[in-house]
Order: sequence, then C-alpha cells, then structure tokens
Amino acid sequence: MFPEWKNWRHVVKLDPDKPADEWLIEQVIASGTDAIIVGGTQNITREKVLKLFKLLKPYKLPKILEVSTIGSITFGFDGYLIPVVLNAGDPKWIIGAHKEAVKLAGDLMEWDEVLPEGYIILNPECAAFKLTEARHPLSEQDILAYARCGENLFSLPLIYLEYSGTFGEPELVSQIKSGLTKAKVFYGGGIDNAQKAETMSKVADTIIVGNMIYTESIKNLKDTVKATR
Amino acid sequence: MFPEWKNWRHVVKLDPDKPADEWLIEQVIASGTDAIIVGGTQNITREKVLKLFKLLKPYKLPKILEVSTIGSITFGFDGYLIPVVLNAGDPKWIIGAHKEAVKLAGDLMEWDEVLPEGYIILNPECAAFKLTEARHPLSEQDILAYARCGENLFSLPLIYLEYSGTFGEPELVSQIKSGLTKAKVFYGGGIDNAQKAETMSKVADTIIVGNMIYTESIKNLKDTVKATR
Repeated sequence: MFPEWKNWRHVVKLDPDKPADEWLIEQVIASGTDAIIVGGTQNITREKVLKLFKLLKPYKLPKILEVSTIGSITFGFDGYLIPVVLNAGDPKWIIGAHKEAVKLAGDLMEWDEVLPEGYIILNPECAAFKLTEARHPLSEQDILAYARCGENLFSLPLIYLEYSGTFGEPELVSQIKSGLTKAKVFYGGGIDNAQKAETMSKVADTIIVGNMIYTESIKNLKDTVKATR
Repeated sequence: MFPEWKNWRHVVKLDPDKPADEWLIEQVIASGTDAIIVGGTQNITREKVLKLFKLLKPYKLPKILEVSTIGSITFGFDGYLIPVVLNAGDPKWIIGAHKEAVKLAGDLMEWDEVLPEGYIILNPECAAFKLTEARHPLSEQDILAYARCGENLFSLPLIYLEYSGTFGEPELVSQIKSGLTKAKVFYGGGIDNAQKAETMSKVADTIIVGNMIYTESIKNLKDTVKATR
C-alpha cells in the first residue's frame, strides 16, 4: 500500500546519480522531513538505486521510488511514484514507457503501491525537459489547463510543478493550486533556504528539496523543514 | 451530470459527416438502443453537429457528444465523451487538444458533464488511426498494457476498443476485459448484424454500432439491440 502522503509538507529527493553516504542520509533524517523520494533523470541504474536503498533501509521514514526507467525499478520501497509528464512532447513520457513497464510486469503489477503524479516541467534548461521534449513556453493558462486535465481527465491525485534547479514563481504556483479542486500540488525547484521553503510552502501543498543537500546549503535543510510547519 | 451509462449494452454512433434525416433517426430510436453518441473523425463542424442535435432533440434517449475537435463542441447534449487515445503517436490526442479546450473554456468548464474514455485504435486503415499516428502493430500484451495504464494510471472509467470499419477479434476483446478490474470495455467496429452483435456483446460491456445504419444493414439494427439483451 502506498503510504499516507496527503499531509506531507516537506520531502527530500535523493538523486541516485549523486554521491551519498551515511552522513548525508543522517542529515536528511535528522532534518525532520516527511518522506524521502529516490529519483532522478540522468544515468539512473538499478545499482545506484539499490545503493541508496541500502543506506535508507535502517530508517522508518517513508521511502518512495520515483520511477524514471524500467531498468531502475527496485523492490522494497514503501511506494512507487509514476511520473506522467503532462506537457511532454513525446508520448513515451505520458504513457509509452509506462505501457512497456506494465506489459513487462504483467499480472505481477502491484497497483496499490503506485501513485501516479502529473508532472509539468517548467525549466527549459533541465535534463527532464530535454528528455521529454516538453512543450514550452507555457502561459499560466496553459499550465492551469494541463493541471486541470491531469486532475479531471486523468484523475491524477497530485500535480507536480517541476522547476528543477530554478526557483519558480510563487504567484503562479498559487494560481494553479487555487484552480484545482482535489489534486494536491507538489512544488520542486531551487529551494535552498528557509525563506524560499516558506514562500513555496504557503502556495503549494508539498515542497520537494533536492539539489541543496548536495551543496553546502545542506546546513539549511532543517530550517527548510521548520519553515513548512 | 453525465447520464448513467454503466448499464448501456448497445449504443448507436451517428457521424455528423454522414447524411441523416428524420427517417434515419426514427429507425435508431425504434431499435431500442440505450443511447446515441454523435461523433466522427473527418470533416466534423459545429453546423453538422447542430443539424444532428436538432433531429435528436425530440427524443428522450441519452444524447452524447463525443468531442473530436474544439470547433465542433455544441451545448445541449446530455453528456460529453472525451477520447484519450492511449496508443496515439502524437500527444495532441492524449492530452494536447484537451488542454487547449480546457484553456479555452477556463472556469466555464463543466467537468461533471464529461466522461473521459481511453481509446485504443486498432484498425490501421481507419481515419482516426492515421490522424492520431496511432502505434501499431500491437500485440495482445501491448493492448492489455495500454488498457491497464488507462484504468490504473489515468483512472479512466472505460476502455474503448476501436476497430472502426472492421470486425475485431472476440478472443482479444475478452482477454482485455478479463485483464481489467474496474473499467468498462466498449467495443466498436464492423457490427452489422445480430450474430456479430451477440458475439461482441458477450465479451464487451457495451457495443457501438455506427456504419451499418448508413447502409442497407440498417434493417438489422433492431436485431443487433435484441442480441445484447
């Protein structure tokens, strides 16, 4: 069963392609974050995912794998996030790769461990944007329309506004959130201190921090969590 | 509110691009079918949709518009089916055109009148196949994986196996149906007599008849309905 997630306010995303050791994981756990997502875009292999999983195993915090490629799926996580890239230019990232994975898994597929997420990728410089050939530029109306299709046509339980590496527009995030009725809004991108965490956690349901833990900004990690409480 | 549809066993699809008059509509009503869908792929205009709507208006049977282009949306129908073409090669037919329509409608969008349908287009010769650049060939496992993604990732309430103009494989339809848990299976394509209707209505939840009403096979229409009871 996918863990209870709707009250998560702060999540740390660990990139299997970046260096991690016990010290790093201890910092993440000690921060008081609500959950850990393992996920990335480039050079993700099962070996790297497994290495992270082993480091995380001793801890009780929900450990979620965000599945980016079939080859990196590793059993043992508490749940699996499946990105549906709403503004992808290549259908592979909306349903194609998913179909291949489901075909491979066949009757072994455990749907109750899966949570689909409606991604909208908004930083044209990031790796995921290029990989998925994401549509751009998008006006606020375009983004809202994608989000509403995700919520209403596809019944996606969460819309993930991905600014990966850049800090987005709080006003825009707020508009998207107020334009939705049921779906939660996840925000990710550019959060590296308490102030940015506070700003985005006021307009999104959940903020995701990632890159900051691989830089000296990790010293601010606990404060980003506090800022969401 | 979209009408109750889960018990529909037989539906007639009227193509706005084909000739229709009061006599034709009377035949359709007299057949005892459960509902009427107005929908097509080529040369659909609001004028043509409106012309059909006026012919249908006197009758109580549920009148549903299957939306193929933004330009042909006409108010007054009892509900709106929105095709999500799961095996489309162009994302426009999975979410792109939908996003544009939702952007245009803005806050006026009435989601409770809308039912999304997960289309899988299986006849490589049909217009919709070419238009959507549908993926082909698909093995039974591919089709089932698409259907399961539609059901589980996108929570689509129905999977529409579209053989448009050709009669599909009952065994395959049966396999798809038994591989799903919640979604209903609509079957469309090549039904022009009671025997074919019976065969497909044994394996699908709902059969759609279309082309037959524009040929002399219309004499069999009532029998295709009886075959589903």
